[in-house]
Amino acid sequence: MIFVGERINGGFKDIQKAIKEKDKSIIGRWAKIQTEAGADYLDVNMGALSNKLDDFVWMIETVQEVVSTPISIDSNKLSFIEKAIKLCHKSPLINSTTADKEKLDEIIPLAVESNASLIGLCMDKKGAPRDANKRVELGATLFSEAIEKGLPEDKLFLDPITMPLKFLQEQASSVLEAIRQFTLLSSPPPHIIIGLSNISSQTKEEELINRIFLVMCIEAGLDAAICDVTDEELVNSAITCELILNKQIYSDSFIKAYKESRKK
Amino acid sequence: MIFVGERINGGFKDIQKAIKEKDKSIIGRWAKIQTEAGADYLDVNMGALSNKLDDFVWMIETVQEVVSTPISIDSNKLSFIEKAIKLCHKSPLINSTTADKEKLDEIIPLAVESNASLIGLCMDKKGAPRDANKRVELGATLFSEAIEKGLPEDKLFLDPITMPLKFLQEQASSVLEAIRQFTLLSSPPPHIIIGLSNISSQTKEEELINRIFLVMCIEAGLDAAICDVTDEELVNSAITCELILNKQIYSDSFIKAYKESRKK
Repeated sequence: MIFVGERINGGFKDIQKAIKEKDKSIIGRWAKIQTEAGADYLDVNMGALSNKLDDFVWMIETVQEVVSTPISIDSNKLSFIEKAIKLCHKSPLINSTTADKEKLDEIIPLAVESNASLIGLCMDKKGAPRDANKRVELGATLFSEAIEKGLPEDKLFLDPITMPLKFLQEQASSVLEAIRQFTLLSSPPPHIIIGLSNISSQTKEEELINRIFLVMCIEAGLDAAICDVTDEELVNSAITCELILNKQIYSDSFIKAYKESRKK
Repeated sequence: MIFVGERINGGFKDIQKAIKEKDKSIIGRWAKIQTEAGADYLDVNMGALSNKLDDFVWMIETVQEVVSTPISIDSNKLSFIEKAIKLCHKSPLINSTTADKEKLDEIIPLAVESNASLIGLCMDKKGAPRDANKRVELGATLFSEAIEKGLPEDKLFLDPITMPLKFLQEQASSVLEAIRQFTLLSSPPPHIIIGLSNISSQTKEEELINRIFLVMCIEAGLDAAICDVTDEELVNSAITCELILNKQIYSDSFIKAYKESRKK
């Protein structure tokens, strides 16, 4: 399982405050906590508060002063992504591109030449997908463009686009179906990722819904998630799911064994 | 989701004691607790302690004195099953038959004429299945025999046979694959059931493994389980899973709504 820590995001008030006041301690604290919890990447997102490249640079540099966990560059601006890639000490994850041809023509070569991984969102200019078929069609476009332009399949992360259960309940089944289809694209298939927390947006059982949906997605073929890596029950559920799928050899203390095996 | 309460089973020490001493209070207590927790059927199993028909009759009558929840007749002896069916106030679940032709020739007509449901185990004289293909082959045999002999598909429960993760780790994936295949047998498909607790046998994380495996199975197409219905986290996980699959309309208090809707 590839865990991307979601917490360094300007959508959270403490991160907003940190950016405004250039308070390194808040960013640094979340960088450490998420790394200790087992994050493979730390997502860095400015949110709507700022659109200054300097702020983004400051955030990434602050994270890298504290931990060596790779960065997930969360921006839709190509100029920001280009700058961020140059700052990254380790091979980053670009989060993200849509499936629009003109975007892919720019961003895939950038990922290839900088040895970065790339999240491809199954959406385009026409908006979010309404069913599994559209997700699969856009996923196939992302996959074929990536392969054609020289991005290895293990550097591509397909995101089927998760919608809030509260408002678009029937979309969850489409996401699961799309994940199953993505696993058939190639052998081994590309990585499959979701932004987990969206599923439980504005519900009263956020952790429960996140946890159950993550397990269902892993059963369907998912192998990566942008999520709250500090939610221990969530992480333990994912570990147990992978144990059941025979991706880790059973031992009585399999959770501890998994965590030990991933210490950096 | 169809929940079969597993607790009135001579494998548990308190039930052994109850049978030996003809202590109705212990059996009655578990009948009530499991019914209140939402069991659709109460499994009644003598375990290895006794092989007396009188004891089995006593157990079933004791349960029915306290609750009106239908009985899951858990015995592999045809004579016990025949007797138990006559005692049952409500249409019971016969637990179970193997896929052997001579057994099916006897037990399916019995289920048909008594309007009972029937669990068909995906195993035969040769033993337990070793892979998904064997499970699917035996499931198809059970399904076609049932249909041919007049048992409606909604009275048939296919059990792909769950093995302990600790000793046969690779079998869990075969169970999931078999469940997916069973959903393709007909539309609507037969019910699909597992004896859940077997998966976590002799592990140190029984509840966690049970919970995660149940969610994975439901994602794959399972709609019934013999399990610890008094494990609230387990039941809530299954409810959440069915919500995500759009089998219940979302509301902020969806767990409460589900439980209310099932009160007898």
